Amino acid sequence: MPQTVSADRVTHSDLANAVRVLAMDAVEKAKSGHPGLPMGAADMATVLFTKFLKYDAADPSWPDRDRFVLSAGHGSMLLYALLHLTGVKDMTLDELKRFRQLDSKTPGHPENFMTPGVETTTGPLGQGIATAVGMALAERMLNAEYGDDLVDHRTYVLASDGDLMEGISQEAIALAGHLRLNRLIVLFDDNGISIDGPLSLSDSVDQVKRFQACGWNAVRVDGHDPKALQRAIARAQKSDRPTLIACRTTIGFGAPKKAGTSKAHGEPLGAEELAGAKKALGWDHAPFEIPETIRAAWAKAGKRGRRLRKAWAERLKALPAEKRAEFERRMKGVRPQGIAEAVARLKERLVAEPQAVATRKASEIALEVLTEAVPELVLGSADLTPSNNTKTKNLTAIAPGQYAGRYIHYGIREHGMAAAMNGIALHGGLVPAGATFLVFTDYARPAMRIAALSGIPAVYVMTHDSIGLGEDGPTHQPVEHLAALRAMPKMRVFRPADAVETAECWQLALERTDGPTVLALTRQNLPQIRREAGNGNLCATGAYELSPAQGKARATIFASGSEVEIALAAQNILAEQSFAVRVVSVPSLDLFLAQPEKVRARIVGDAPVKVAVEAAVRFGWDSVIGPDGIFVGMQGFGASAPYKELYRHFGITAEAVAEHILRTHNL
Amino acid sequence: MPQTVSADRVTHSDLANAVRVLAMDAVEKAKSGHPGLPMGAADMATVLFTKFLKYDAADPSWPDRDRFVLSAGHGSMLLYALLHLTGVKDMTLDELKRFRQLDSKTPGHPENFMTPGVETTTGPLGQGIATAVGMALAERMLNAEYGDDLVDHRTYVLASDGDLMEGISQEAIALAGHLRLNRLIVLFDDNGISIDGPLSLSDSVDQVKRFQACGWNAVRVDGHDPKALQRAIARAQKSDRPTLIACRTTIGFGAPKKAGTSKAHGEPLGAEELAGAKKALGWDHAPFEIPETIRAAWAKAGKRGRRLRKAWAERLKALPAEKRAEFERRMKGVRPQGIAEAVARLKERLVAEPQAVATRKASEIALEVLTEAVPELVLGSADLTPSNNTKTKNLTAIAPGQYAGRYIHYGIREHGMAAAMNGIALHGGLVPAGATFLVFTDYARPAMRIAALSGIPAVYVMTHDSIGLGEDGPTHQPVEHLAALRAMPKMRVFRPADAVETAECWQLALERTDGPTVLALTRQNLPQIRREAGNGNLCATGAYELSPAQGKARATIFASGSEVEIALAAQNILAEQSFAVRVVSVPSLDLFLAQPEKVRARIVGDAPVKVAVEAAVRFGWDSVIGPDGIFVGMQGFGASAPYKELYRHFGITAEAVAEHILRTHNL
Repeated sequence: MPQTVSADRVTHSDLANAVRVLAMDAVEKAKSGHPGLPMGAADMATVLFTKFLKYDAADPSWPDRDRFVLSAGHGSMLLYALLHLTGVKDMTLDELKRFRQLDSKTPGHPENFMTPGVETTTGPLGQGIATAVGMALAERMLNAEYGDDLVDHRTYVLASDGDLMEGISQEAIALAGHLRLNRLIVLFDDNGISIDGPLSLSDSVDQVKRFQACGWNAVRVDGHDPKALQRAIARAQKSDRPTLIACRTTIGFGAPKKAGTSKAHGEPLGAEELAGAKKALGWDHAPFEIPETIRAAWAKAGKRGRRLRKAWAERLKALPAEKRAEFERRMKGVRPQGIAEAVARLKERLVAEPQAVATRKASEIALEVLTEAVPELVLGSADLTPSNNTKTKNLTAIAPGQYAGRYIHYGIREHGMAAAMNGIALHGGLVPAGATFLVFTDYARPAMRIAALSGIPAVYVMTHDSIGLGEDGPTHQPVEHLAALRAMPKMRVFRPADAVETAECWQLALERTDGPTVLALTRQNLPQIRREAGNGNLCATGAYELSPAQGKARATIFASGSEVEIALAAQNILAEQSFAVRVVSVPSLDLFLAQPEKVRARIVGDAPVKVAVEAAVRFGWDSVIGPDGIFVGMQGFGASAPYKELYRHFGITAEAVAEHILRTHNL
Repeated sequence: MPQTVSADRVTHSDLANAVRVLAMDAVEKAKSGHPGLPMGAADMATVLFTKFLKYDAADPSWPDRDRFVLSAGHGSMLLYALLHLTGVKDMTLDELKRFRQLDSKTPGHPENFMTPGVETTTGPLGQGIATAVGMALAERMLNAEYGDDLVDHRTYVLASDGDLMEGISQEAIALAGHLRLNRLIVLFDDNGISIDGPLSLSDSVDQVKRFQACGWNAVRVDGHDPKALQRAIARAQKSDRPTLIACRTTIGFGAPKKAGTSKAHGEPLGAEELAGAKKALGWDHAPFEIPETIRAAWAKAGKRGRRLRKAWAERLKALPAEKRAEFERRMKGVRPQGIAEAVARLKERLVAEPQAVATRKASEIALEVLTEAVPELVLGSADLTPSNNTKTKNLTAIAPGQYAGRYIHYGIREHGMAAAMNGIALHGGLVPAGATFLVFTDYARPAMRIAALSGIPAVYVMTHDSIGLGEDGPTHQPVEHLAALRAMPKMRVFRPADAVETAECWQLALERTDGPTVLALTRQNLPQIRREAGNGNLCATGAYELSPAQGKARATIFASGSEVEIALAAQNILAEQSFAVRVVSVPSLDLFLAQPEKVRARIVGDAPVKVAVEAAVRFGWDSVIGPDGIFVGMQGFGASAPYKELYRHFGITAEAVAEHILRTHNL
């Protein structure tokens, strides 16, 4: 095959330069983008893709592939060029020409939901490396479960200074170092340049020492020396630790004036500089034109993993049918049969023996059942295990070098946890649920947003969901967090009112496969208000009439979570005065607002007065009660005191609700 | 004085044990709290307060005091015990007995707005150490301006494992190490225990090596050896680098069964264990009882800084009147005269020569004026200086060892920046304004919340505020961030529509002294819509009628920022069809909602149709337009494409607004 012969004559530089020029040309055509990173990191990426990566462009998402995460997502053209050159079907030359255009497969930053071969959405710095930690962990956990025959791959990351400056990187590398995730290899594009100018303007961290302090193997190499890179990666593969390879590079490598400066970072080179760069690189071809020999050599690299993939497929095929089906189900992200049934049985049990417990405890009760029903469910907490009630009796924690287990002690690393959860989910085969206090969703928010944007079905078990946590005070009391999370597209927020609703919300969280779910749970005990199991899942419409009015309703009280109890008590107070009101439980305001108009209208009803009760800010509730509705909740931050006192202090009581309604009625 | 004689006989252990028992007793009485840290860290704190801290309990907030930040805020009783024992007037024994009760000066976590002597609100882990970096930086910057006579103090931090595991700690220590803030000394309570159990469950970072990698001096000592602690702090004071002193301690020191375990962390010891601890410590006194000799010794420590304070006050008094007044004004947080006048002049200039610029550019224009009018204003950016337009020509950047300047290259550290800004503001004498993209408020949110809760007047210059940023795509396009920030109590969010509104919003941001302000600014150019300077600041009510209807208004269009232009164009389209609508500009929805009912009613008006236009999610707008109002904005996340195309794609156009109004009207 002459093509192969030609391909063999192609040099490393030819291959790397092909990546560089495609990046330059695409950015130039788009009049927007970041040429500097692809030009600087092309050598690293070329060595990785041509010598190491277990990758088959014909099926870029086969389960036992190596993962490659471009943490420095602004260098997206590097990744697109690699996917194109290795032969990913949808990544045509036309797509490169449509870089950063609407509905292209080449958006400004890599989006895994837009582009085959993109492992995770990156761009917000630090997310990629932290997500990769989750992928590397998932690999080891599944390896412990399924063995080397089915799960045996590596996770590679290309990270920039920005990734390593972001705090989340510390949480990620500390976790990876602690857990000795030696299948994780980070190539650091150590170019010494940031947007403001030389990195020395803002940073002087010795990254090699820092990673070593975190339990990593860490070395420095010349990032433009393919042999040195090859040796370093080969050594990294043998390490018993995760490895950082700090690759000294020149940003915008090849650009005659802009190379090595921040000018090369985030804007097109311009015609003159681009021409100069091509000349310096010895590249004499039209824009977007790649010589056939170089194409052929890249295409060969794109098939490096084909034999391995086929052998893997054979091993999978040889498995007992049941085991194979289960593995395939899990890797496809299909949920097991039996979740609904398990929850239905649990609800019957709860109705038979009502539980007056905190919803965090109710969550534990649900998890005792659901961890059995969903074997891929992996729990964890950011060092609040005894408070979050996430470690059910049947779960074993993983540990350094010991990956058989379904519980993760993430440490005091909310952000790293949420990003690792993204990686665990994206890896496939596991469903992550992680816990902290609701107020600390603020720490995890950038990673939670990646989950929402990318449609990742992570579950956040967020306890201590209001002033009901009491004495810890306003730093720990969420008041705006429900609103802030409800505002996020595709994020689902549940705040169940009792043990039965908690079971129903867990069911909905686990059945959801197209996005993340927050469960906001109380610290304080609540009565069990639901005394009938009923048919189906009442929480599925986000809100439902919990307690009808006795007579024609003169008001509707909407409430969520711990305040449903208060709403019901207010209904009673008013009933004693022959004032009929109905109570609607709203376990998910966002899910309710997403219902069809007719459903919403039926549930909202036509009582003249609308009241919402929630121990949080009003923001968002006017979409149900309107600007003239009555809101009983928080006006501002909370305070430190026993929680019952706080409820009185802030006027969130049944008496107050009843009084507001009567006062409005008397106007 | 026999009292002094007695006091001199008191040992270090007596002093430290007094702290321990007050913490134990207060937690026990409150039936809630964290005894473990105060018991473990009492030796460290005692050495610091009795041997080093420049502190005078008679005036715990005098400007040149040393700062002491309890980053591990859950150990609040340590701080309260110290403030009580050293003699801070308001910190009575009764307050200790009211630990964690409503309106006490002893809330669950330290709150600087509740308690004299508390430097900053802590509890959310990592915030304290990162805030302290800002304090230490402010000290050096003011020292560069005012000299050793007026500004010459240190910042001490007591930090826990949790503080150092949080990612923000990395951003903070990297910045401090880079800037060589050698006046910063961190005592690390290295007790090896976290809530889930031994720290080894989740962490194996070598913190000393890690800090060294970040440019710190770092050592280990026995945290229960007062001599060793004393030597280490003395050495740290002489270092040319910030210093970490990792103090090996036993959590719950003294508790017979719980010491050294997570059981000592976050709950009362219980009567038996408490009695055992007192016995082990050789403490034979009733609850809350401190022997007079020990009281006297602590009272003496509380006066350690008195002489220094008085000498400082003399030096201040000796200054030329004008210089002294200016220093005092700045340290009190009073804004200079002339902000309003400077803005008025700028507005006149803009009206004379209208500027069709992005509001980020308009912000730069305003800053050229305001950095002159407000000499304490310190700008900076998290490595997006050329995009945020925050470095005006008259500003010089500070650098390692060079603190004369008013611009800070924070590096790619949004969270660390926001926390450092808190520290800069809390230190006094400087007003911090820091910048990044609006979408990255997610990264900074926990520190921004501390600012809101504590009433810190920081200004966040958040550019690239919508899909208007174009090609960078949905990872960089905020859609829910305006809502999420508006939901936060005491956070003010401005989104000006043109250069004139930008000047007005900057004025309001700088005049505000009781809380933080977000300025959401565009990347894309906008026309100047305000053509009259007018009297006063039209943005001060959050919303105002920008363009009245020609005739009786049949609809009101509310819009903010870049969509005001669209609203005005829609008004024109409809006017051509003789359909009269009015346009209300809403530079701050939250400020508008905080206006008195009458003001709101006047501005909302009584046109039958209400429309809101904002390139963001609807969430929160129903408080103005109601559930039946028309919203033209985003339904979900954005996309990567040139911005004009995105506006068309998502239907945020004048034509769409006009059509929605006509369609509703025709119903």
